[in-house]
Amino acid sequence: MEPRISFVTLAARDLSATRRFYVDGLGWAPELEVPGEVVMIRVGEHLILSLWDEAHFEAEVGSIGRGDGVPPFTLAHNVGTRAEVDAVLADARAAGADAADGAARDWGGYTGYFADPDGVRWEVAWNPDPIGRSVLPGPPPH
Amino acid sequence: MEPRISFVTLAARDLSATRRFYVDGLGWAPELEVPGEVVMIRVGEHLILSLWDEAHFEAEVGSIGRGDGVPPFTLAHNVGTRAEVDAVLADARAAGADAADGAARDWGGYTGYFADPDGVRWEVAWNPDPIGRSVLPGPPPH
Repeated sequence: MEPRISFVTLAARDLSATRRFYVDGLGWAPELEVPGEVVMIRVGEHLILSLWDEAHFEAEVGSIGRGDGVPPFTLAHNVGTRAEVDAVLADARAAGADAADGAARDWGGYTGYFADPDGVRWEVAWNPDPIGRSVLPGPPPH
Repeated sequence: MEPRISFVTLAARDLSATRRFYVDGLGWAPELEVPGEVVMIRVGEHLILSLWDEAHFEAEVGSIGRGDGVPPFTLAHNVGTRAEVDAVLADARAAGADAADGAARDWGGYTGYFADPDGVRWEVAWNPDPIGRSVLPGPPPH
C-alpha cells in the first residue's frame, strides 16, 4: 500500500453551517456537491476535502464517538511567513471561527489554531524546516 | 485563505504501536521522526501524515474528547480498480488492522474500510467519477 491520502472526510453535524463556514466564510469553492449530503473542495493537486452530512457518514462508517474536548486530529495549512500565519488566522476569525493567536513553538516554527463549526482544529503554520517548506505550493524553494 | 491542506496530524495514544502499524506493517518510511514524540510520513507531493504522541498533542492543542464509536473523520486512499481495493484491504489486514470487505456503493464506487491502532478509519476507494480519478497519482487520465 503506497503512502498516499486522497480524501480527508469530515462528519458535519449541521452541513449547512459547515458549508457556510468553508464556502461562504473562507471562500473555498466546491468542486462537487450534493445538497444536504456532501460538499467536496479541492485542497491539493490530488487531494479533496469532503464535508459529509453526519447521518450519511454514520450510515456507512458507523456511530461516531465524540467526547468533551478537541477531536483527536488536526489539519494544517502551511504558509511561507509568520505574517501570513497572522493574516490567515484573521481570515478565519472573519469567517466566524474561534482562533488562538499565533505563537512561537520550541521546534522553531510559528503556528496558531482555529476551529471549524464542528470543532475540527486547523493549524496555521510557518515551519522553516525542510519538511515544512516542502509542503508549500509550487516547486521546492531554493 | 487558499483551500489547501499541508499536514494531517493524528493523536497517537501509543506512538510505538501506531508507528509499528504504519512503518513496519504498511511499510511507509518516515521522512522525519523524533523518537517517542512524532513520526512524519509523506503521503502526497505536498502533504505529510504526522503521527503525534497524544501527550504532546494535548499539551499544544488541548484535551482530546473521545467517545464510544468511530472518530468523526476518515482518510481515503483511492486506487484505480476494484481489485486494488481488495488488495489494499488485504495489505492492511496483514499489517494487523481490522478491515471491512469492499462493497459496491450506491454512488457507483467500490470501497472498504480499515482501522489503525487508534481507530482512525481509512477508506480504500475505487471511485470512477472524474473527481475520484483526479486524485490518483500522475497526470490526469485520458
